[in-house]
Amino acid sequence: MDNDIFYNPTKVIFGRNTELLVGDEVAKYGDKVLLHYGGGSAERSGLLDRVRKSLKASDITVYELGGVKSNPRLELVYEGIAMCRSNGIGFVLAVGGGSVIDSAKAIACGTPNSDDVWDYFLEEKTAKAILPIGTILTIPGAGSESSDGMVITNEKTRQKLAYSDLGARPVFSILNPELTFSVPAYHTAAGISDAIAHIMERYFTKTEHTDVVDRMCESVMRGLMRNAKAAITQPEDYNARAEIMWACKVAHDGLLGMGREEDWGSHAIEHEVSAVFDVSHGAGLSAIFPAWIKYVYKNKPQRFIQWAMRVFDVEYDVTDPDWTVMQGLKRYLGFLKSINMPTSLRDLGVTDKSVLDEMAHKCAEDNGGTVGHFAVLKESDIRNIYELAY
Amino acid sequence: MDNDIFYNPTKVIFGRNTELLVGDEVAKYGDKVLLHYGGGSAERSGLLDRVRKSLKASDITVYELGGVKSNPRLELVYEGIAMCRSNGIGFVLAVGGGSVIDSAKAIACGTPNSDDVWDYFLEEKTAKAILPIGTILTIPGAGSESSDGMVITNEKTRQKLAYSDLGARPVFSILNPELTFSVPAYHTAAGISDAIAHIMERYFTKTEHTDVVDRMCESVMRGLMRNAKAAITQPEDYNARAEIMWACKVAHDGLLGMGREEDWGSHAIEHEVSAVFDVSHGAGLSAIFPAWIKYVYKNKPQRFIQWAMRVFDVEYDVTDPDWTVMQGLKRYLGFLKSINMPTSLRDLGVTDKSVLDEMAHKCAEDNGGTVGHFAVLKESDIRNIYELAY
Repeated sequence: MDNDIFYNPTKVIFGRNTELLVGDEVAKYGDKVLLHYGGGSAERSGLLDRVRKSLKASDITVYELGGVKSNPRLELVYEGIAMCRSNGIGFVLAVGGGSVIDSAKAIACGTPNSDDVWDYFLEEKTAKAILPIGTILTIPGAGSESSDGMVITNEKTRQKLAYSDLGARPVFSILNPELTFSVPAYHTAAGISDAIAHIMERYFTKTEHTDVVDRMCESVMRGLMRNAKAAITQPEDYNARAEIMWACKVAHDGLLGMGREEDWGSHAIEHEVSAVFDVSHGAGLSAIFPAWIKYVYKNKPQRFIQWAMRVFDVEYDVTDPDWTVMQGLKRYLGFLKSINMPTSLRDLGVTDKSVLDEMAHKCAEDNGGTVGHFAVLKESDIRNIYELAY
Repeated sequence: MDNDIFYNPTKVIFGRNTELLVGDEVAKYGDKVLLHYGGGSAERSGLLDRVRKSLKASDITVYELGGVKSNPRLELVYEGIAMCRSNGIGFVLAVGGGSVIDSAKAIACGTPNSDDVWDYFLEEKTAKAILPIGTILTIPGAGSESSDGMVITNEKTRQKLAYSDLGARPVFSILNPELTFSVPAYHTAAGISDAIAHIMERYFTKTEHTDVVDRMCESVMRGLMRNAKAAITQPEDYNARAEIMWACKVAHDGLLGMGREEDWGSHAIEHEVSAVFDVSHGAGLSAIFPAWIKYVYKNKPQRFIQWAMRVFDVEYDVTDPDWTVMQGLKRYLGFLKSINMPTSLRDLGVTDKSVLDEMAHKCAEDNGGTVGHFAVLKESDIRNIYELAY
């Protein structure tokens, strides 16, 4: 294990009806809140009304900003920052999935500083202060409910970039699995694919002696796969929804990366796909990650052999270890297909290869020339992975 | 999963030389510290000098209170409280193992309140304020470095009681595996036994649908057993020491009990043993827990079948599920013996059965009549478990 710090102070309030506690929680931080959300589903389901009522009961003045789309846009972030500044709002409450939470985090980073918030994503500056953030999660997967990161899309420059800051971890996150009953099968599956990818970005590491955390990674991957089918096919199965919701949180709260160098190459490679084609991030990862594995596993085959054996119960073939890896990959692909996730760029609707060169170029450029740590990939490697994923 | 809250804001600073950061960390909370420790080993090793130096470099005034013994005593807690009050000390820094940290927590609970701190342990009152606590851990196992609990022995009443308070989680804990190189084999093994017990107290639950957390429990138990031998027989094996240190933290930071009813009967039953015989808590658990399993597994055999299969790779016997459990138990006992832990009260030096009646009586009495939740055990059950463990 490498030297490392684990610090995750997000208070997670888990279970049925927990959204009714939101007023009490927000009141600990202030009396004015920006209520930030996406489209109409939180309104239609009555969730937003319950939230408003709880906030009102705690004498909190509510300012609202809806309209967050998946792959959340910088323009709306600017709008939120302006609202918070002009009204002296000191708390941002996100009600929604990862996109809403990421947008809320960016607003919280931008509001109390005089910088252009986009400079943080360009890695030119870091936020000196950040407003406290709370979340009520409705779509598990992104893990933003207790992570320190956010991803925002700048439509003008066609860039989709990430910013991480320890101060951006929500102070509380409310996770009620019932609120996920209405998540459609496709988005449920995309969330699961995303969560598995969050674990694999940490699992495939060059760091040696990572036994306990490895085993924890494997257990959460298995748990996600074990409960995926029920959560998708029986959308009101509370138990399966609860398992998935909790596993998605653990997958990205930092614990599973403790003491090791993480990779994050596949995420960067996927971000280019969803920036250009506006596909769901988890679906994009479902096409990219298998290709990444195929491309890089020879760098350190034992990582992938262990993964195949412990996550997918593949028998070790002493005479042909590569077979073991390929069987693991086959089962991973089989799982993704079983939950109707795309496993190629064509499945995602990319019908023209000519765009791949530009994507690879942009991906390398946006990330300072290379992506990844387990495998350091330059533009030509990224292009090869797009090719494999096509 | 049951409704539950996960909130663990302890910042864990992990790795080589991390004790040198202690001054910076304490300075965030104040300029006067009670440096609390045990016997001479932290002095002899030079650790205390490094700590003093780091605190001094951060302009922190240091007051010292050493002398904590295993099964930490209430008398010393009172002394610490008096020191903190008379000197206006606002931070308690524990340098040592679980006993030192528990003692520090009790001092931190007692200082800012006018109550007798023992009333918290008698469940008559709760602390209204608690001083911030930091730790530099030297003996892994108890998990006190990021738990909310503490156990203190009142020699006058011969009671060993626990108190838990969310405010008692250390604000930071420094975990440098090198500091554990000097932990003798017996105490290393006792710590590992304790950590496995912390997981099993959570794992054996009546709560249904606990899949993901179950798997995480299993992975940490396996990790502890996988690395135990190396940590014990090659005391300067950094990698094994690091795995054990991290696993012991995870075992008791609350994560592995998320969304479930926990048991804690074996701990209460063991506390009576170490209160009377002053044996190491982890060694006591090594004698008590197997007896507890034997006594209660029929309440819900599938929990124990799963444990046997997933933690100990026992093959499931469809025609004789009990065999599966007994094989698991046999392998658990085999593991404990392999690390030279006692597996009976006689191994612990209890040579006279006549004391068992009184211990069972006291155990029930101290815990309001019964112990445990998975299995609710009254005095006669506790007596039976002592008998099985004899």
